[in-house]
Amino acid sequence: MYELGVVYRRIERAEAPVADELAAFGSATVHEAMGRVGLMKPVLRPIYAGAQVSGTAVTVLLQPGDNWMLHVAAEQIRPGDIVVAAVTAESTDGFFGDLLATSFKARGARALVIDGGCRDVKTLTEMRFPVWSRAVSAKGTVKATLGSVNIPVVCAGALVRPGDVIVADDDGVVCVPRALAAATLDAARKREANEADKRAKLASGVLGLDMYKMREPLAAAGLRYID
Amino acid sequence: MYELGVVYRRIERAEAPVADELAAFGSATVHEAMGRVGLMKPVLRPIYAGAQVSGTAVTVLLQPGDNWMLHVAAEQIRPGDIVVAAVTAESTDGFFGDLLATSFKARGARALVIDGGCRDVKTLTEMRFPVWSRAVSAKGTVKATLGSVNIPVVCAGALVRPGDVIVADDDGVVCVPRALAAATLDAARKREANEADKRAKLASGVLGLDMYKMREPLAAAGLRYID
Amino acid sequence: MYELGVVYRRIERAEAPVADELAAFGSATVHEAMGRVGLMKPVLRPIYAGAQVSGTAVTVLLQPGDNWMLHVAAEQIRPGDIVVAAVTAESTDGFFGDLLATSFKARGARALVIDGGCRDVKTLTEMRFPVWSRAVSAKGTVKATLGSVNIPVVCAGALVRPGDVIVADDDGVVCVPRALAAATLDAARKREANEADKRAKLASGVLGLDMYKMREPLAAAGLRYID
Amino acid sequence: MYELGVVYRRIERAEAPVADELAAFGSATVHEAMGRVGLMKPVLRPIYAGAQVSGTAVTVLLQPGDNWMLHVAAEQIRPGDIVVAAVTAESTDGFFGDLLATSFKARGARALVIDGGCRDVKTLTEMRFPVWSRAVSAKGTVKATLGSVNIPVVCAGALVRPGDVIVADDDGVVCVPRALAAATLDAARKREANEADKRAKLASGVLGLDMYKMREPLAAAGLRYID
Amino acid sequence: MYELGVVYRRIERAEAPVADELAAFGSATVHEAMGRVGLMKPVLRPIYAGAQVSGTAVTVLLQPGDNWMLHVAAEQIRPGDIVVAAVTAESTDGFFGDLLATSFKARGARALVIDGGCRDVKTLTEMRFPVWSRAVSAKGTVKATLGSVNIPVVCAGALVRPGDVIVADDDGVVCVPRALAAATLDAARKREANEADKRAKLASGVLGLDMYKMREPLAAAGLRYID
Amino acid sequence: MYELGVVYRRIERAEAPVADELAAFGSATVHEAMGRVGLMKPVLRPIYAGAQVSGTAVTVLLQPGDNWMLHVAAEQIRPGDIVVAAVTAESTDGFFGDLLATSFKARGARALVIDGGCRDVKTLTEMRFPVWSRAVSAKGTVKATLGSVNIPVVCAGALVRPGDVIVADDDGVVCVPRALAAATLDAARKREANEADKRAKLASGVLGLDMYKMREPLAAAGLRYID
Repeated sequence: MYELGVVYRRIERAEAPVADELAAFGSATVHEAMGRVGLMKPVLRPIYAGAQVSGTAVTVLLQPGDNWMLHVAAEQIRPGDIVVAAVTAESTDGFFGDLLATSFKARGARALVIDGGCRDVKTLTEMRFPVWSRAVSAKGTVKATLGSVNIPVVCAGALVRPGDVIVADDDGVVCVPRALAAATLDAARKREANEADKRAKLASGVLGLDMYKMREPLAAAGLRYID
Repeated sequence: MYELGVVYRRIERAEAPVADELAAFGSATVHEAMGRVGLMKPVLRPIYAGAQVSGTAVTVLLQPGDNWMLHVAAEQIRPGDIVVAAVTAESTDGFFGDLLATSFKARGARALVIDGGCRDVKTLTEMRFPVWSRAVSAKGTVKATLGSVNIPVVCAGALVRPGDVIVADDDGVVCVPRALAAATLDAARKREANEADKRAKLASGVLGLDMYKMREPLAAAGLRYID
Repeated sequence: MYELGVVYRRIERAEAPVADELAAFGSATVHEAMGRVGLMKPVLRPIYAGAQVSGTAVTVLLQPGDNWMLHVAAEQIRPGDIVVAAVTAESTDGFFGDLLATSFKARGARALVIDGGCRDVKTLTEMRFPVWSRAVSAKGTVKATLGSVNIPVVCAGALVRPGDVIVADDDGVVCVPRALAAATLDAARKREANEADKRAKLASGVLGLDMYKMREPLAAAGLRYID
Repeated sequence: MYELGVVYRRIERAEAPVADELAAFGSATVHEAMGRVGLMKPVLRPIYAGAQVSGTAVTVLLQPGDNWMLHVAAEQIRPGDIVVAAVTAESTDGFFGDLLATSFKARGARALVIDGGCRDVKTLTEMRFPVWSRAVSAKGTVKATLGSVNIPVVCAGALVRPGDVIVADDDGVVCVPRALAAATLDAARKREANEADKRAKLASGVLGLDMYKMREPLAAAGLRYID
Repeated sequence: MYELGVVYRRIERAEAPVADELAAFGSATVHEAMGRVGLMKPVLRPIYAGAQVSGTAVTVLLQPGDNWMLHVAAEQIRPGDIVVAAVTAESTDGFFGDLLATSFKARGARALVIDGGCRDVKTLTEMRFPVWSRAVSAKGTVKATLGSVNIPVVCAGALVRPGDVIVADDDGVVCVPRALAAATLDAARKREANEADKRAKLASGVLGLDMYKMREPLAAAGLRYID
Repeated sequence: MYELGVVYRRIERAEAPVADELAAFGSATVHEAMGRVGLMKPVLRPIYAGAQVSGTAVTVLLQPGDNWMLHVAAEQIRPGDIVVAAVTAESTDGFFGDLLATSFKARGARALVIDGGCRDVKTLTEMRFPVWSRAVSAKGTVKATLGSVNIPVVCAGALVRPGDVIVADDDGVVCVPRALAAATLDAARKREANEADKRAKLASGVLGLDMYKMREPLAAAGLRYID
């Protein structure tokens, strides 16, 4: 599936205003707006609570226990990007730490999403450079085997193409294909508009059963109430 | 084991003063007070640190990837309840988010314990609506298949009957059967009374070996000291 | 591998100044300074963020679901020690809580590292007694079967001998053999000296590709750039 | 939830002919016949392929790393029983081996279902004494702490009451409550009767889409075919 | 990432002779021949040992706990196909059993690869219809929510497009993109030709150190021999 | 803990007759004979059922995803050895296949125990070269980074020194330190002698409760029988 040993320098990124605005909706709403697809598996967790970002994907394919390609990827970062790193086999090693974070930040990266481990999390938290990772591990890595940069990768079960939009927060990480970004933003706005109204009704004690008109389909499905 | 498609509207809840007071002792002490039984597996974790609650159980049985019955359950909540949701198969989907939390809170629920996933955790943390869950996931769910409300359920390995008392904090979640709630409260009070005294002794440098009179049984078991 | 039912009272500890100073470098740097060995598996996690300690190991071998030997170990603690507890089988039970922590602290222990579960984490956090554990669980343990104190143990995959230096922080836990402690401290200091300079360069936008002179080996390995 | 230190000697077993006949239908069909409930989690696996049994449950609650109560349970076994063992915490230790199997078999037990580990699997396979377990492990256990026999237990997520019917095969283990055993047998027979006919149709090339009349509901749900 | 509710009826399959011949080389050799990419994660295991197949992929996207789309997929199967089923969330339910296998076989399918659970494994083994799955579970599924057929899917971490070649055996499952199938077959043949010769040398006692000329690079990397 | 980049050519092996004879007792009995220590974690499983071996350990430390040192180890194998391979981080890659097995076998190795993955399991099964591994995976490995041969390693949680005795069968893998091998063999013989007698009694219907005289200690522990 993967082409190894290549770096694509020219990628088409989703439009910046769209990519930027999606952050505000969060991964759950964006995931709904896309029709409940595109989500990475929940094994990826943020290294600290509260970060909420979006940006365009620079993708990296790593070999297990080897972070060489993250250095190669740094050169391809443009302001507003989020680096998405897949690994060719499961690995919890600490591929990424504060030095790489300093470099990524200087290049304009907003976050790292990695299907592997991360370290220096105390410093990364102080720097406010958010990382979503499969593990935290002090274990360092070697620089010996090639992977690739800016090829399509599968990260935590989701297909990510370079230039796609990544939305990440405490709930997880979702990938919005570049071609669907604008439509997804529209759909997310509509959902959000509805939500404020719904929230007010529910807070006042209205039941979802009534608000969503569920009583009839529940009865049709055979739900019985017993006193 | 399970009856599907039913909602029991009348359940006998443990007495409110007992259910309320158990929170102060925490899950570890209550678990000890019950003779070390009734604990849910430690895969359930709180979405934020520091919450400590108790209340009477409204139980829900969900189908994997389907949160329909949580809406049905909302109507059965009374002030002081904690909703306990089991799933018929392992699922990490985000069954519960801020809209349902708003509704549960408006009905008087104190918390949710769910053997599945939860989402909108940033908002839930701001709302201070505590959830103990198996996972955090942005993945939404459908509303297509019936489960049940207020039947006995197995949640994270523990049997919970509607009306039982749930005690949850950073250490985990314990279920106290309704019939044992008063006796458990008594036993917890006695343990707690002893603990302050023990803590002072240990803080002053007295060893548990002496305080608990362990030296003799250790020697009897064959412990040897080597210099 | 293990001798059961024994307590070694005389152990040779690494020199205190060396053991103390290693904390400042953190587990990732110390792990690098040792040549990327000695790390415990990342299943061990701190019960709260931000603790960073080092000290000399008092080792304990526990039986699953039984914390008797932690009481025996308390007597062997000297100021500056970190207790390292292995278990003869995987167990997530709460072997350690606030009473034992009070006792350990009174004896001068700086932390506990346990390949099992821990409880009372809210109180432990308030006490600022750090624990690295495999799980958090309210489940209590019995006191029925002997293990040992101050024998070599394997904790989360790492061999720890009594008197070795333990370094633990948010990234994990590393064990430095007593005989290598001084040399490791030297190596850690050298790494750290280099890091400040590297960080400044990377922050100014210099790429790791250039700073580490990676372009040539990458080309030699066959990396191709595609525009 | 659990009463510790007790042995119930008188239990009401499901009727033998019903308990015996359910084996032939297998766990999947019985699980369907009950309305898709009562199944143990798939972490329980048979120690060898091909066994297919049913029988009445003698239940045991074990402490982690302690198999004392299996010896107590042996005395309560009657011909046609299946022993179902739960553990108060997750444990992969080898609670059961060829000596206990010899004893259980002599008492008339047909199988063991255990939410823990098993050992001597080569001998057990030669003896044709089937075990469904969470793990295989050579690790032995102690005999130090009481559990109970013939109380309701939660085994691999399923509630089992003494006297319930257990059906186990390569697909897993299902528990049929005593009161539902006869009705479940009827339902299983009906399903089976249908299945032979369905199998013949499908083997001849008829599609499930047509046989189950799914085309209309699929279209109603919005399925689109693209050429 | 995924388009829901669609069935692509026209897919371009890899050429049959190429797809058929790859089976003989096995997943490990094909994976090497592709440059060590395209492998599904080793959580997928065969339900019985010894099956070794290849074929062209018909892809299915399932919802957790719902096997409706497998019935839809059956109609799209042509002789020589292997069905590859992804699920939108982790699920171990038994999506597939002997009735569906009968139908798939009647349509000419050679195997199923599913990132979920499978049941009726005893019958499937007797039918010699091989399945690679994440779990074996008696748990049945509903038919309530749409997925898709013949869209690109991520199955156990690997991207599979309809018409790609699947190679599966006891070592695992590898996906060969349609466009690379012929080149991969050539590369596999070359590897295999070499292997017989290597095997003979190694069997005669020649060391890999000498046969692969590793002594020099090992010395260059700093390997020291100590007597 | 580990010395990297070294090969110890001279190791002291346990005496061959002792190492050879231990196989007959199996891992469970040997583990008991040692006092219930020395066992590897049950994540290691045999690639086929029925193998039962013992031999002297040649140890290898591997880097994740890199099998270079297995080739280095091959040269150090003597007839009667079992290769024990640890990895510096968790890895399920297929480090070992039929070519290395051919070489190991030619050198006189009896088995491989590896805390990582294995491939070509069909061929290994036909060759009857047994492997205990953490996973089966077609994923190949590189040859880029040094580890060591014949240093003490931690494999699946157990410390193994070169020359120790390894006993492995369907129940798992146990390591007997060289210095304890003769005493362990004696203890195993005594256990075995007892077991035949016990088995006969249990088969005749005598209860373990009576044979092991458990009734009194059970009553002392408070066990109550309820009719």
